[in-house]
Parts: sequence; structure tokens; C-alpha cells
Amino acid sequence: MATEAALQHYHELVEVLRARRGASPETSYVAQLYAKGLDAILKKIGEEATETVMAAKDGVPDAVIREVADLWFHSLVLLVHLDLDPDAVWVELARRSGVSGLTEKAARGNSAQRKE
Amino acid sequence: MATEAALQHYHELVEVLRARRGASPETSYVAQLYAKGLDAILKKIGEEATETVMAAKDGVPDAVIREVADLWFHSLVLLVHLDLDPDAVWVELARRSGVSGLTEKAARGNSAQRKE
Amino acid sequence: MATEAALQHYHELVEVLRARRGASPETSYVAQLYAKGLDAILKKIGEEATETVMAAKDGVPDAVIREVADLWFHSLVLLVHLDLDPDAVWVELARRSGVSGLTEKAARGNSAQRKE
Amino acid sequence: MATEAALQHYHELVEVLRARRGASPETSYVAQLYAKGLDAILKKIGEEATETVMAAKDGVPDAVIREVADLWFHSLVLLVHLDLDPDAVWVELARRSGVSGLTEKAARGNSAQRKE
Repeated sequence: MATEAALQHYHELVEVLRARRGASPETSYVAQLYAKGLDAILKKIGEEATETVMAAKDGVPDAVIREVADLWFHSLVLLVHLDLDPDAVWVELARRSGVSGLTEKAARGNSAQRKE
Repeated sequence: MATEAALQHYHELVEVLRARRGASPETSYVAQLYAKGLDAILKKIGEEATETVMAAKDGVPDAVIREVADLWFHSLVLLVHLDLDPDAVWVELARRSGVSGLTEKAARGNSAQRKE
Repeated sequence: MATEAALQHYHELVEVLRARRGASPETSYVAQLYAKGLDAILKKIGEEATETVMAAKDGVPDAVIREVADLWFHSLVLLVHLDLDPDAVWVELARRSGVSGLTEKAARGNSAQRKE
Repeated sequence: MATEAALQHYHELVEVLRARRGASPETSYVAQLYAKGLDAILKKIGEEATETVMAAKDGVPDAVIREVADLWFHSLVLLVHLDLDPDAVWVELARRSGVSGLTEKAARGNSAQRKE
């Protein structure tokens, strides 16, 4: 599929996650998770990371996609719960890799944390 | 910042990760990780999930952004290493939440795994 | 309390875990976990490790004890499920640290994996 | 091997871990870990839990023993670092399972957290 459509999904998902803050816990899984609080969200991140590892060891592509989806989903819930902007994660990644308008060489010079 | 720019970062990062497959391990962190293989990548996912939890417990916003960036980055490395399309993760998330062209009600009916 | 009593607890716990293999899933939490199989046990190990990290970050001593207990408990369930002898873990640890009859110096020379 | 010998290993290992608190970081792996502090120890617990999961998925018995050994070892380092008594973990486990002098039935009545 086109990356553009995928990114539209990301944009809409973040909007949904933001809209559900403060909603009654009975109305959705996410509202329930926000109501339970930070620890419940963090436990999910630990769980989904473990399940991603297991799916990859099983070598089942669809399961890997589903578990990474669970992992990213709960990461987004964490960021929205903490009132952080998920876009900041992509900016951080761009900063490290020197993509998006910076020349790679300049980025290398600017960031000790570059990993790519 | 604009979501559009963030997503451009995502797009470019995926391209960089794809381009570095098969490169000599000395040329970059990612090439080295691909050369080490699946287990090395999975260990990083476990590590970064733990560090995300720790950063959130510390309550340091910048550290949370950095650790989620590490977590997503290594998830992307995993997907590219397994020759999976990262866009499929966003499609999976859209499918569950019923965003992007599906009415939410229809999505609820179609997916037992809906979480939002 | 005396270490001797603690170790009696360990011994009895391992016996209980062994005895519950093959029991009907309705009879106990452990029998249910064995029936669910390896993946269910591994998910618990991931979960309890995350909760141990969280309890330690919270700085609540009783919670750390409880979470480490959960982590060791599910590690023991894993070993018994795989028909491995939990005592072998202590033997492995003794081998690395050079305690129990080996002089520490000899152990250092013999083991590349020594960590203590 | 006899459980008694295994537990002697446990006892001696705990003594070694206690003795190394306050030692110069150069003198041993454990002294270095104490010097790095809580976060470094917690990262190791996350790492070793992930590696335990991976070894079990690989189905390699010796690797499972080694990774559980790493996991228990770093759990013990955590407890000693926090000045907690590792024996308390076995007491907690005995309390839940109703072994060691309590009749199982009594234990069931007394503990909502019983898991066995």
C-alpha cells in the first residue's frame, strides 16, 4: 500500500487516542487504560514487547505485524497519557539519522546519539 | 510540528533502513545489527521496552521520547530484517480502530481484536 | 529468618510444581498455566520482569519482594514445564562464581562466563 | 544432584553478593554493577527475562538454564543492592503456596494472592 495512506492511519489513530482521554472507562478499551493509569499502560508495553519477541521467534509474519501493532499502539497510548506529542518521536528519529533536510554528514557531527 | 513532516521522517527512515540491508557491518550501527541477526535485534526490543518503562517511571518527558524512539527504531529494524512492510503495522492499527474510511460501527462488527 | 527454612520453602515449592503437572487445569493456577503451554508461561516471565522493574523504581520494598517472588515462581514453572531441574540453575551459578568447593581462583581460570 | 547442595550454592552466592557491596568497581562484575546503580541492574533484569524467553522458544535446555541463572543472579543483585533479604522471597512464595508447616487449606483461606 501507499505510505501516504499508512501515515493517514497514524494521524487518525493519534486523534482517536487524544479524543478518548477523559472519556468514561466503560466507553472503550483505551479510556479504561487511561483510567487505570500509568502502571497499567507500562505493563502492556512490557507484555507486547515480550509477545513481539515470541512472534518473531515463531517466524510467523502476520503475528509479528500484529504484535508490533500492539507495541506501537500502547506506546502511543503512553505518549498521549503523558501529554507528549507522538510526532516528537519521529523528529527524534530524524534528528539521529540525519534525514529530512539535514545532510547526513551534518547530522553525524551534531548528534552523539546517532544510531543509524 | 506538522504531522506531515513527522511522517516524512518515518518514510525516509524506512528507506534508510532498507538501503542498509546487505551493507558491510562496519558501515553503520544498523548494518551491524542486521549482520548479528534476529536474536540481536530482539534483545534490543526487550531492552528498549524496559528502558521506556524506566523513563516513564522517572517522569522525564524527554527521556520517554528518546526511549520510545529507540523502541520504534528497533521495531522498524526488525520488520525490515524480516522483509516485512512497516506500513502493514499502520494498516493493522487502522483496521482495528475503524479509522480511515471505515465507519467505526462497521469496524466494530468486523474485528474481534478491536482494542480502541 | 534462617536461610535453612527459606531453602526448605524452595524445596517444597519445586515439589508442589512437579506434582501439579498433568493435573486438571481447574484444580490450580499452576495446572492451568501448564495446560495453556509454553507461550503462556513465557508471557508471565516477561510481565513479572516488567513489574519487578516498576516496583524497584517505585522504591517500595514489599512490592519488590512480591514481584521478584512472581518472577522466580514463573521461572520455576517454566523449568518444571520443560522437565528441567531447577537445582541445575544453582549449580550453574555456583560454577560461575567459584563457590562451593572450588577455590575462587580456579573458577576464574575455568570459566569464561564468570560474572561475579 | 541433591537439593541440599544446590541450596548451599544459593547461600554462598548471597554471601558473595553481600560481601562485594562497597568494593571497588574494578574488582568484579558485581561491584561494577552496584556502582552503576539501580537502573543498570534493572536493565539487566529486563535483558535476561527477554533472553530467557528466547532460549525457551529456541528449545535449547542448556540455554534456558543459563538464562534463568542470569535472571536469578541479577534479581539477587537487585535485592542485595536494595538491602533486602533474598530469603524473604522464598518466605513470600511459601506463604502463597501454603507449604512449610501451614496446611494448604489454611493458606488458601489466608491469602488472596495465592497463585499455586
